[in-house]
Amino acid sequence: MHTIPEGIDTPEIMIDRDVLVRNIARMATTVGAKGLEVRPHAKTHKVPEIAALQLSAGAVGLTVATIGEAEVFAEHGVDDFFIAYPLWIGPREADRLRRLLRANVRLAVGMDSPEAAQMMAQSMGPEAGQIHVLLEIDSGHHRSGIAPEAGVAVAEAAAAAGLHVAGIFTFPGHSYAPGMPIKAAEQEESALGTASNLLVAAGFNVERLSGGSTPTAALTGPSIVTEVRPGVYVFGDAQQLELERCTPEDIALTVAATVVSRHEGTHGMPRRVILDAGSKILGSDRPAWTTGFGRIMDRLDARITALSEHHATVVWPPEVTLPALGERLLVIPNHVCIAMNLVDEVTVTADGTIIDRWRVAARGHNK
Amino acid sequence: MHTIPEGIDTPEIMIDRDVLVRNIARMATTVGAKGLEVRPHAKTHKVPEIAALQLSAGAVGLTVATIGEAEVFAEHGVDDFFIAYPLWIGPREADRLRRLLRANVRLAVGMDSPEAAQMMAQSMGPEAGQIHVLLEIDSGHHRSGIAPEAGVAVAEAAAAAGLHVAGIFTFPGHSYAPGMPIKAAEQEESALGTASNLLVAAGFNVERLSGGSTPTAALTGPSIVTEVRPGVYVFGDAQQLELERCTPEDIALTVAATVVSRHEGTHGMPRRVILDAGSKILGSDRPAWTTGFGRIMDRLDARITALSEHHATVVWPPEVTLPALGERLLVIPNHVCIAMNLVDEVTVTADGTIIDRWRVAARGHNK
Repeated sequence: MHTIPEGIDTPEIMIDRDVLVRNIARMATTVGAKGLEVRPHAKTHKVPEIAALQLSAGAVGLTVATIGEAEVFAEHGVDDFFIAYPLWIGPREADRLRRLLRANVRLAVGMDSPEAAQMMAQSMGPEAGQIHVLLEIDSGHHRSGIAPEAGVAVAEAAAAAGLHVAGIFTFPGHSYAPGMPIKAAEQEESALGTASNLLVAAGFNVERLSGGSTPTAALTGPSIVTEVRPGVYVFGDAQQLELERCTPEDIALTVAATVVSRHEGTHGMPRRVILDAGSKILGSDRPAWTTGFGRIMDRLDARITALSEHHATVVWPPEVTLPALGERLLVIPNHVCIAMNLVDEVTVTADGTIIDRWRVAARGHNK
Repeated sequence: MHTIPEGIDTPEIMIDRDVLVRNIARMATTVGAKGLEVRPHAKTHKVPEIAALQLSAGAVGLTVATIGEAEVFAEHGVDDFFIAYPLWIGPREADRLRRLLRANVRLAVGMDSPEAAQMMAQSMGPEAGQIHVLLEIDSGHHRSGIAPEAGVAVAEAAAAAGLHVAGIFTFPGHSYAPGMPIKAAEQEESALGTASNLLVAAGFNVERLSGGSTPTAALTGPSIVTEVRPGVYVFGDAQQLELERCTPEDIALTVAATVVSRHEGTHGMPRRVILDAGSKILGSDRPAWTTGFGRIMDRLDARITALSEHHATVVWPPEVTLPALGERLLVIPNHVCIAMNLVDEVTVTADGTIIDRWRVAARGHNK
């Protein structure tokens, strides 16, 4: 049984440092053993202290989603970023990227159109050539990214605009569903392989091939990619648990919550307890294949059937006594990246004792 | 057509002040004409400037969800709160409530169990009697709240503990679904009526009867309630639009976003554009009855079919030209309360010009 230290006001995000460190070490070992580099996605945690743990475990740099996230981590000494996003770089974005380059930060950005290449070159001028451009390939997720066959046209436009096309990347986001991780990892390799072969045939030097999400990172082979970009693995969450990509022992982040309302199911009302952790701390991500809006640690057979902003409705197994009013439980959020983005600080524990508070320094840096 | 002022980096929450002021005035008039008081729920906006507009339009005080929200608005001069939540008041919460009382703030809190009454009395001592207790009645939403028939037992426990039972409240949250507002408003009146009659018969003076959400506030009659607590009405959102509780002209809050990726649908891939506004600014609330993850202003026939943290996937009507890369669009979020809780500041406009920036001062105050 997990215990919640005294002195915690709920709802509160709790991070178990030992589990976190173990998750970081395991990913480094698994991926390193295949000869691949790890460039963890820092949008998951947004915490400089966690980035430092990842870098000292051998990460080659960070992946981020926005220029703003790169700026925050650069202030904390990180000097190598891949902004894995098809940025539209206007004059103001160009100024910010130039400022990072002049602070000796190595940068790569995503791109999926000739127009974005021309815009970047026009806004940044000659310094644009110092940034690695990685073309985004659609490997089946159908979000941003171009078909593997369309890579050469974008690469040629980028090169003509004076940009440095250094490689390609993909996000196999369709791996976040039951039975999908293996299939998505295969599609990822196939899409990157096709795009890479066409680019090489067209005379491009494809130095960087970047793939991998938490569900696929351990499955991605060294035959194609040079680096993987897992994010969620540091904490685990209810989605990864239900995808069987982690176990309850791998969960490093939970939300401490208090039972504020308790109903035995009299008067024709449903039997339930209400926790003071709602969508404003757990996030409301709830893919159809999940069992609910998160899970309860040490009571995985309970179901979070509804979530409003400050209430979680939890249905307890019929044969089990409901927790008492005022009792504290730990909730495993469905999607940790969203939960971390809702708080300014988190509590860090080891062996059930509070050892630190960390600032979520890059929280809300959406641009 | 709405225009987006120059100088806005996306994604950014934009508030149209004139629409906001009109929404506030309309609710004040509609509800005031029925002789009811408006106590707007400030969890929606979390902005002191908006609270000031509501209070000058005649609101009797604010509803909030947490002690922390009350603390922030009290710092900005608001002195009358109903914390519409079944608080579990331990010693630390008691200290915070006492601090508010000593600053001459009038407080009411929600309650739905004898245990919470005893806990509050024990933690606060005699000052607990200065706080109005409103019993939470379940009118069909089945979240927190007791059956109308169970009110007297809780009221008696509260009175025995020295608390001041001032009334009852309910949240007809099941009104947030198509065809439900009228039915939910009827159930709300019926539940409050039953509970109130039983309490009066047991000798309680039911001074305050509080109900109403944005979908039901205009439907709630004066026969039962004394005040309503709408929140979302200040901004409107895609849910209210799809419930036909507001029109596009009533939408005061949008998220300015840029087209970062554009796909005509070649190579067997879906035709779509990708915006740089994802769940980290729009929120991921997506009830099954909605058409998607929000709507596009001036292009209501487009569909936001998927949302990830920094991407919205938007499917355009087949016969309509896709917007260009770099073009800026306004997104109407599904649930404004969630969107506001994701940013620290918002841009305020009037007649398409930036006139102010407001701090979302109570953002993240979850406890």
